[in-house]
Amino acid sequence: MSIVFNPSVRCQLPVLLLLLQGILIAIFAVFLSYDEPSSAASLSNITVAKNNHLDTYFLLFKDVQLMLFVGLGLLLSFLKLYGFGAMAFNLLIANFSIQWAVLVQGFFYHYRDGKIHFGLENVMHAEFAAVTALISAGAILGRSSPVQLLLLSMLEIPLFVLNDWLINYYFRIIDVGGTVAIHVFSCYFGLGVSRMLYRPRLRAGHLKNITTPTTDLLSLLGAIILWIFWPSFNSVLAKSAEAQHRAVLNTFLALSFSTLTTFALSSLMDRRGRISLVHLQNSILAGGVAVGASADMMITPAGASGLGCIAALSCILGFQYISPFLEKKLKVQDQCGIHNLHGLPAIIGTLGSILAILFERVDTAGHVFTSDIPIEKESLIPDTAEGNGAWNATDQALNQAAALGVTFGVSLLGGYITGLLLKPPCLVHPSDEMCFDDQPYFQIAIDSEETWSLNLKAQGELLVPLKQV
Amino acid sequence: MSIVFNPSVRCQLPVLLLLLQGILIAIFAVFLSYDEPSSAASLSNITVAKNNHLDTYFLLFKDVQLMLFVGLGLLLSFLKLYGFGAMAFNLLIANFSIQWAVLVQGFFYHYRDGKIHFGLENVMHAEFAAVTALISAGAILGRSSPVQLLLLSMLEIPLFVLNDWLINYYFRIIDVGGTVAIHVFSCYFGLGVSRMLYRPRLRAGHLKNITTPTTDLLSLLGAIILWIFWPSFNSVLAKSAEAQHRAVLNTFLALSFSTLTTFALSSLMDRRGRISLVHLQNSILAGGVAVGASADMMITPAGASGLGCIAALSCILGFQYISPFLEKKLKVQDQCGIHNLHGLPAIIGTLGSILAILFERVDTAGHVFTSDIPIEKESLIPDTAEGNGAWNATDQALNQAAALGVTFGVSLLGGYITGLLLKPPCLVHPSDEMCFDDQPYFQIAIDSEETWSLNLKAQGELLVPLKQV
Amino acid sequence: MSIVFNPSVRCQLPVLLLLLQGILIAIFAVFLSYDEPSSAASLSNITVAKNNHLDTYFLLFKDVQLMLFVGLGLLLSFLKLYGFGAMAFNLLIANFSIQWAVLVQGFFYHYRDGKIHFGLENVMHAEFAAVTALISAGAILGRSSPVQLLLLSMLEIPLFVLNDWLINYYFRIIDVGGTVAIHVFSCYFGLGVSRMLYRPRLRAGHLKNITTPTTDLLSLLGAIILWIFWPSFNSVLAKSAEAQHRAVLNTFLALSFSTLTTFALSSLMDRRGRISLVHLQNSILAGGVAVGASADMMITPAGASGLGCIAALSCILGFQYISPFLEKKLKVQDQCGIHNLHGLPAIIGTLGSILAILFERVDTAGHVFTSDIPIEKESLIPDTAEGNGAWNATDQALNQAAALGVTFGVSLLGGYITGLLLKPPCLVHPSDEMCFDDQPYFQIAIDSEETWSLNLKAQGELLVPLKQV
Repeated sequence: MSIVFNPSVRCQLPVLLLLLQGILIAIFAVFLSYDEPSSAASLSNITVAKNNHLDTYFLLFKDVQLMLFVGLGLLLSFLKLYGFGAMAFNLLIANFSIQWAVLVQGFFYHYRDGKIHFGLENVMHAEFAAVTALISAGAILGRSSPVQLLLLSMLEIPLFVLNDWLINYYFRIIDVGGTVAIHVFSCYFGLGVSRMLYRPRLRAGHLKNITTPTTDLLSLLGAIILWIFWPSFNSVLAKSAEAQHRAVLNTFLALSFSTLTTFALSSLMDRRGRISLVHLQNSILAGGVAVGASADMMITPAGASGLGCIAALSCILGFQYISPFLEKKLKVQDQCGIHNLHGLPAIIGTLGSILAILFERVDTAGHVFTSDIPIEKESLIPDTAEGNGAWNATDQALNQAAALGVTFGVSLLGGYITGLLLKPPCLVHPSDEMCFDDQPYFQIAIDSEETWSLNLKAQGELLVPLKQV
Repeated sequence: MSIVFNPSVRCQLPVLLLLLQGILIAIFAVFLSYDEPSSAASLSNITVAKNNHLDTYFLLFKDVQLMLFVGLGLLLSFLKLYGFGAMAFNLLIANFSIQWAVLVQGFFYHYRDGKIHFGLENVMHAEFAAVTALISAGAILGRSSPVQLLLLSMLEIPLFVLNDWLINYYFRIIDVGGTVAIHVFSCYFGLGVSRMLYRPRLRAGHLKNITTPTTDLLSLLGAIILWIFWPSFNSVLAKSAEAQHRAVLNTFLALSFSTLTTFALSSLMDRRGRISLVHLQNSILAGGVAVGASADMMITPAGASGLGCIAALSCILGFQYISPFLEKKLKVQDQCGIHNLHGLPAIIGTLGSILAILFERVDTAGHVFTSDIPIEKESLIPDTAEGNGAWNATDQALNQAAALGVTFGVSLLGGYITGLLLKPPCLVHPSDEMCFDDQPYFQIAIDSEETWSLNLKAQGELLVPLKQV
Repeated sequence: MSIVFNPSVRCQLPVLLLLLQGILIAIFAVFLSYDEPSSAASLSNITVAKNNHLDTYFLLFKDVQLMLFVGLGLLLSFLKLYGFGAMAFNLLIANFSIQWAVLVQGFFYHYRDGKIHFGLENVMHAEFAAVTALISAGAILGRSSPVQLLLLSMLEIPLFVLNDWLINYYFRIIDVGGTVAIHVFSCYFGLGVSRMLYRPRLRAGHLKNITTPTTDLLSLLGAIILWIFWPSFNSVLAKSAEAQHRAVLNTFLALSFSTLTTFALSSLMDRRGRISLVHLQNSILAGGVAVGASADMMITPAGASGLGCIAALSCILGFQYISPFLEKKLKVQDQCGIHNLHGLPAIIGTLGSILAILFERVDTAGHVFTSDIPIEKESLIPDTAEGNGAWNATDQALNQAAALGVTFGVSLLGGYITGLLLKPPCLVHPSDEMCFDDQPYFQIAIDSEETWSLNLKAQGELLVPLKQV
């Protein structure tokens, strides 16, 4: 495994990025053409309808962008010495993933007459794909190089598209907010990667794995921005105005009740009743994750509210009991606690959607099931019972469960293999001492002596068993 | 008044919150049902119209959310050691108040056939109600516990709904931006509470009542976010597209002229011409408060601009002369200066609306008055002159003045009583030493020795007569 | 040049501001009247159409406001000791410029029957004008007083309106995103001003010209907010729904490829492969600047992506090689690097638009050219070949080049003259020691001894040849 040259950021990052950009532009040049709404060939008498289409899509598109780049960027910036790594690499990974997903999804869904038809809708779906890479990267935040993160995205995006297709076309999952497709998938993919990149020396804690009041406040601000726009995220793919309206309401209620439950339970967990910022930054969002699978159903306001409470409970218990177990027993280090915010609430949410289906809380018109399938793909659908006959709640419930199981398996296995591919020492990765630190990647203005002393300390004593509160 | 157990955050906060959540979900389960736009029973041939409705409402709804959670959250985070208290308790109070207001307003306005009909519009109106609790809490920022703040919201929301109903149905106030209903009400309610929670030992200042350049900058950023979305706030309840357009323009102009006037007057107030950050963080918004009552009227661009200047003037004079008077003579400590940002400009704005009405600058179609009353409530309206006859400017002007007076009285009295109920020592409240400090409520990462030394100092010498500039 | 009184902020800023506010309100009172959509006289049967108009305009209007006040405000706040100067003076200049541009553009374009017809569209166009003043001010950030910045805006806005009219009416430029009209103009105007306000003693660097990790992170956040809303900026003035959709897509792609190219090239430039924050904060936006002139054309997705890459390349090479040349040889100090973000990418973008035109990638319907001219001004247009005959690609390409040349000349000359007028010592300007420092203008909470020691040091040794990395 020893290797001749010492891998350096300067050798690998620019080469990889420029190569990827060149290849992407070349493929774009050959295959991408504007979809109708952008094409000058479209006639003026349909302008008004399109204008509305642009409006609606464009406005929700910006909400999703705010979530990805500002909300998530800030949320991840909680480490004292790794703020740029969090926010800038988030920007890097998101952009590459979107470009890459536009291609992969394009060939999958929008390829006609030798061209990928490209419009705002493609970018929106690509951003949903990119979210998975960003969440997975949260598990190894501060313990991976940008080169590794780019490779992770390169491998995760196609697997996400495949799994998404599988659960939509074979299992006809109802999952407007991506609870299974996005949250379950990205969580177990990320944990799989993290298992492979396990660093035993970080087990006892790390001197640089610390926050400051300012970084914690900015991270909370990021969580609040995600919180505000989550209803947009869960409703943008709804199939009718009624379903969209319900999705907004249910998501809002789930988030709102998550938030109050977080304050209550976090306070209850502490001997002196003090609220944990880690809980606040994560658990207030748990309701949004959980309600994704049933957001457009008739789950009633009380149902959405209750789901939010349970999701927050699972998230806080996860931080308290399951994360230490994962780290100590299963050798899975989960820096951002993605298992608590994405994994557990998403499982709760899928169970919730199954219950809702069994109680037939889905739209009585049943349009969710028939219109879920883009017309051009209809012939590919296998001849299952629920496809061409009357819709059957038990079948759908089983399909939801099966989709959850399949996604769990595919993502965990995919994560293991990806982690294996990111492991070779020929790839840049930070030394144990330089984990959770911006210095290897950014020209930072050192303004306190503390940073230097921390560095020296870390090099001398390596790591002290100092656990952040 | 002595009490057996020492009240602790851990005993009271989780119990209160979980109890409230349980009760709210139970009532939601019994009484809340989706309003038509979310119900699957609605027919598909009205989908288009509803889609537009969702669009318009949803978009302005997000603006209001950004104001409440990001704008106000950041604005309040100006204290060096109380950033989490400001931002997180803002989130807590806002969420509880919205849930509670959905119920109270639901029984008041949307209760039909044994059900509260619940839609995005309800949430929007509930957020307007929640604003009052958030503003009032500004008066006692850093001097109250989350338990007290929850109780404050619990008491203030119903009183707000009652007063709002009173001034709309009896006095038919014209007040599209809530100048009287929200700003006057929340200000004097908050001052009433603060009077009751007066802490004589804080009179000479407090060691922890300090800001840093970073917190001041983030607070200014919060003010700017409020500034940007204020036109949405003042226009969302306008009754026609024309009125909404006017409300946006008038609010923008009032804010813009407030801003320049703030720079001018703040510089003029200082011996060396330096601008005060407290002025900047507050007075640039004074125009938005003041113009609320007349935003949809034909007050002309120059009128809106002039109103913005006068509102900023009142706000800055308030900080300079009235706040010290309130504190020293009337024993009212007003931490965020809500009297200067909300009280004074709102009074100016109400006077402005009266002038505008007397000069008959209201919409010539007069639709403001007839459509102001939801149809289902029409029969409750008393048979006053302006109700069924021709509209009369003088009557309306008198009604505006009467609504201002009634709101002033109701809110001040309500605030006193609420303050009295928050006072008993069996409720958690911070000691004088722990005012303006996150430590009793949050597990914070202590990253400077300064915090500790401040603590020790505060415990030793208690409070020194050190006044923040 | 010696002068009797020592110019003070307190003497000049309030007087100038109050004077300007008074004059503006007086002119508003005489000349401004609501445009039809806000006027109560408009009939109810066109309400629906107008409602849509309000929606579309209002929503993009808020995006532009977020860019100006939050995005740009944060981006400029990178200096450790000049955060308030950056964010607050940005607010000051933007507001004054908008008010002033409403008047100048009003008399130019919207003056009918003795009145300026005023609506949201006017404010939007005024904000585009204000952008130029904000960009130009970036060249002299920290080296100028608010009084100077107000005078700069007062002079730049009319010249911008004149130049904008010139290149639109005489050269019929295609420039939906303002690449020439805004970016080229503001850049060379700002550099002209900076040349005149050259400070030889700052040549070797300045003790206070430093950043901290926190300010750099907030500045990056500002860049990301600008990045998110740039597609709105480049598409808001597009003439049809198709063109608007294309403008959004092309701008998004240009920005996305700019971003990845920035990471690649910045890493390549550093000996150890570390990314420069200055590059990140600026170069990720270069694609948005460059694509402005061709955003609504059929430049293909690959074309937009490639343009983004080249723009980022020009920006980073500019920081590396051209900025030092400008400072050392041409005595032009460019604090924010506006030449690298606005000048160079805009020139690249104009060349790109010329190539696109020559390859006839413009909309086949050619509506860009006929509808570009407001009807009320049509008679003023000179009888050029492209005006009334068939559209000719070569003519248009020449016109684009000519518009670039004219704008370059007008703005540079205008900047020189403006700089000359800002130079007299009777105007407040900061001493060399007090450059890049908030203290002369703001009552700041001094929370570290470092600030004081820096001050003493700067007064003692003045300036040390210490260059920020």
